[in-house]
Amino acid sequence: MSDTLMTPAELEAALREIGAQRYHRRHPFHKLLHAGRLRRGQVQAWALNRYYYQCQIPAKDASLLARLPTPEERREWRSRLVDHDGDAPGTGGIARWLKLTQGVGLDDGYVTSTAGLLPGTRFAVDAYVHFVRERTILEAVASSLTELFAPTIISERMAGMLEHYDFIREETLAYFRPRLKQAPMDSAYALNYVQQHAHTPEQQTAVLDALRFKCNVLWSQLDALYFAYVEPAIIPPGCFVPDDHHGTQG
Amino acid sequence: MSDTLMTPAELEAALREIGAQRYHRRHPFHKLLHAGRLRRGQVQAWALNRYYYQCQIPAKDASLLARLPTPEERREWRSRLVDHDGDAPGTGGIARWLKLTQGVGLDDGYVTSTAGLLPGTRFAVDAYVHFVRERTILEAVASSLTELFAPTIISERMAGMLEHYDFIREETLAYFRPRLKQAPMDSAYALNYVQQHAHTPEQQTAVLDALRFKCNVLWSQLDALYFAYVEPAIIPPGCFVPDDHHGTQG
Repeated sequence: MSDTLMTPAELEAALREIGAQRYHRRHPFHKLLHAGRLRRGQVQAWALNRYYYQCQIPAKDASLLARLPTPEERREWRSRLVDHDGDAPGTGGIARWLKLTQGVGLDDGYVTSTAGLLPGTRFAVDAYVHFVRERTILEAVASSLTELFAPTIISERMAGMLEHYDFIREETLAYFRPRLKQAPMDSAYALNYVQQHAHTPEQQTAVLDALRFKCNVLWSQLDALYFAYVEPAIIPPGCFVPDDHHGTQG
Repeated sequence: MSDTLMTPAELEAALREIGAQRYHRRHPFHKLLHAGRLRRGQVQAWALNRYYYQCQIPAKDASLLARLPTPEERREWRSRLVDHDGDAPGTGGIARWLKLTQGVGLDDGYVTSTAGLLPGTRFAVDAYVHFVRERTILEAVASSLTELFAPTIISERMAGMLEHYDFIREETLAYFRPRLKQAPMDSAYALNYVQQHAHTPEQQTAVLDALRFKCNVLWSQLDALYFAYVEPAIIPPGCFVPDDHHGTQG
């Protein structure tokens, strides 16, 4: 913990350094995914588990929205709910994620039931929802700052998956294209917010810790996928078993 | 979900069947641990991470205690707090767990800081605390029922660790011996409680689901350990790195 106040530029640099070290772009599962080195069943497992993250994002945004004090702040944050939930049935990020799970051959009912989810996914995502509900508004906003690093990973994922997997088409990846525009707008707002609202070294430390926490949320989801479906490929009891699974079931 | 009410004996049998399939005694990390096939650094990682589970148990018990309606029920549940927190400094289950972490060569300050903890451990344990805080009293009590299966795994662990690891001595395992008596008393109470209080098929289903949830909490902690320290042995950023680590760091 630093005991001197960073300038806004120094705080941004410190946040970006955390991203460089801890963002899940560096995780071996991401590297396998975008390099085309996963079987279809492993891509299914990723899409299925990641669905739970997508569908809980509005829960965490709504709990923050409920605590924001001004109409200006609430309007800004409300746009995230619109992005994910849409304005009509079949629109919004969650519906677009289902294009992906459909595209890789999963049934909507099975996906949305979350019956085949890895416990590690559920616990990591729920930890994020609880964090945003229980911590300060400043920490809750800061925990969204992984979006600073999203455009690069999304571009890698889209290009790599389209190139390498014959079961992935442009429309399967409908989720990602709008995120290339939404994520930078969201993260610019959140970055400015933490720069303006972290007035003490302790608050700046809390902001950095919130980003570390969030990187852990994303990273450990890929740990769970890698363990269950890549190596040692031991699927926890009751979880999704791909048709082409080469390992064992716990 | 069944729509007929089970007898108390049928409910117990259904609970024991869940344990037979999902309790972490079947996890490959447990098998490596008690068979003596782990390096000292891997046993350190297990003891360090499991400390966080131990130290959060009183948090979950206290939150249930706060919601129990009668002095009789509260006195019964209070004994769990006494077991874990003790009656004086240096007594109780948490202090005895530190005998284990000390015995395998870890510094108390590092262990209790939880600085080197795997995110997967933290999220799983926190999920348990939140579950007990947020679900019905019936589900909270039911989630403790993994203790039905504890004596077998504890016996295996004690015998296996003493036999196979020269850095483990009888007093290092001080935590476990009292648990051989406490766990059956606790689980007998909790089993009777859910048999008496689950009056509908829906409540019985909730009891079974609570035990499945808790098995996942224990299982996924071993998934995270296996992934980081056994295979593929990729330690998440910022987590404990044993001196004898053979893999990489994320």
